[in-house]
Amino acid sequence: MAAFIFDLDGTLVDSVYQHVLAWHTALRAVGFNLSVWKIHRRIGMSGGLLVRALARELGREMAPEIAEQLRRRHAEEYAKLLPQVEPLPGARELLRDLTSMKVKWAIATSGAIETAQPALNMLGIPDGIPIVTRDHVERAKPDPDLFLAAGKQLHVDAGQAMVVGDSVWDMLAARRANYLGIGVLSGGYGQQELESSGAYRVYADPEEMRNHLDEMGVRDD
Amino acid sequence: MAAFIFDLDGTLVDSVYQHVLAWHTALRAVGFNLSVWKIHRRIGMSGGLLVRALARELGREMAPEIAEQLRRRHAEEYAKLLPQVEPLPGARELLRDLTSMKVKWAIATSGAIETAQPALNMLGIPDGIPIVTRDHVERAKPDPDLFLAAGKQLHVDAGQAMVVGDSVWDMLAARRANYLGIGVLSGGYGQQELESSGAYRVYADPEEMRNHLDEMGVRDD
Repeated sequence: MAAFIFDLDGTLVDSVYQHVLAWHTALRAVGFNLSVWKIHRRIGMSGGLLVRALARELGREMAPEIAEQLRRRHAEEYAKLLPQVEPLPGARELLRDLTSMKVKWAIATSGAIETAQPALNMLGIPDGIPIVTRDHVERAKPDPDLFLAAGKQLHVDAGQAMVVGDSVWDMLAARRANYLGIGVLSGGYGQQELESSGAYRVYADPEEMRNHLDEMGVRDD
Repeated sequence: MAAFIFDLDGTLVDSVYQHVLAWHTALRAVGFNLSVWKIHRRIGMSGGLLVRALARELGREMAPEIAEQLRRRHAEEYAKLLPQVEPLPGARELLRDLTSMKVKWAIATSGAIETAQPALNMLGIPDGIPIVTRDHVERAKPDPDLFLAAGKQLHVDAGQAMVVGDSVWDMLAARRANYLGIGVLSGGYGQQELESSGAYRVYADPEEMRNHLDEMGVRDD
């Protein structure tokens, strides 16, 4: 029986570009000038890793209090852009179909519950669906902890779950959790980037995935 | 003797993501809800083609007066985000080095002069450099007209110029103009997307290109 673990930003909700520019503004506010595409390519990994990777990119140290200030500022800037954020095409319908077909699914995001909550609210998630956020695990993606915690709550064994995500960090964490990775282009990564990081299928967005559930062994019976 | 024709947004100036969100906001204002990544993948083509392609994606017609409203709204929204826009790392230095080595170069952008001017101002472009914008040609990228017009002003023959750009539309228009395409990742496309559309070299950004000018036959003598 198929089971799915979904990433949130860029996979179910069209929020990646807003997160990218929110990080860009926050980083500039603390004196870190980074090209926007480099932030985009790091989105989806844990905030702590992202900040460390970006600081290393600039060849600078980031004091823990600056890192904390940065996370707060990112949350504030993202909140300003939230009115532009919507579910991705087909996301609500895909989740609804899985639920009605009694296929198990969960959500696992590198974001903290504070920034994830508005996106979760948009999706109309039924009671009882496991939601794993940064707050629940010690290490977020590309460590496998988020996906393993979600799999545990779904009571699925290694190899039984499929991870759906838009970033190479999702694919990498999926592999490390011994789950199959399914990529979506809706976060703005290219198809080959996702394939080379282990996606065994890539769809444009949740809508296209919904129209190809048979390719993942989901049976409507 | 090598000659270069540079795209502007995403190639010399870090403005792609701001353009993407400006289009997103403008499109929503006229009732067109499109996923952000789909706008990103169309950035760099002519505004007219972009609007037509996005309308087709939604299976809707766009009246000419709405298209005009959309272009105006995009320019307004982009202007609001302009304080976030900066030259890409190495851009000013690369152009300065080419000038001092007496290598010919030009800029060719699908944008109108109105939106391109602030970006051009940031780069400190010397007098006499050809600047070709949407206003000078009938058809912008992926038609080759912009690059051909720039090549003409540089007095270079087909095959003599290299086009530097961040999008597949640059690479496609370069091929059609019979110029070599050089890709940069700084607009957020993946390396393989650029290679499959004809880039014969791909660099991270102007800084990396500047450190590899010998790979393009530029000689410092």
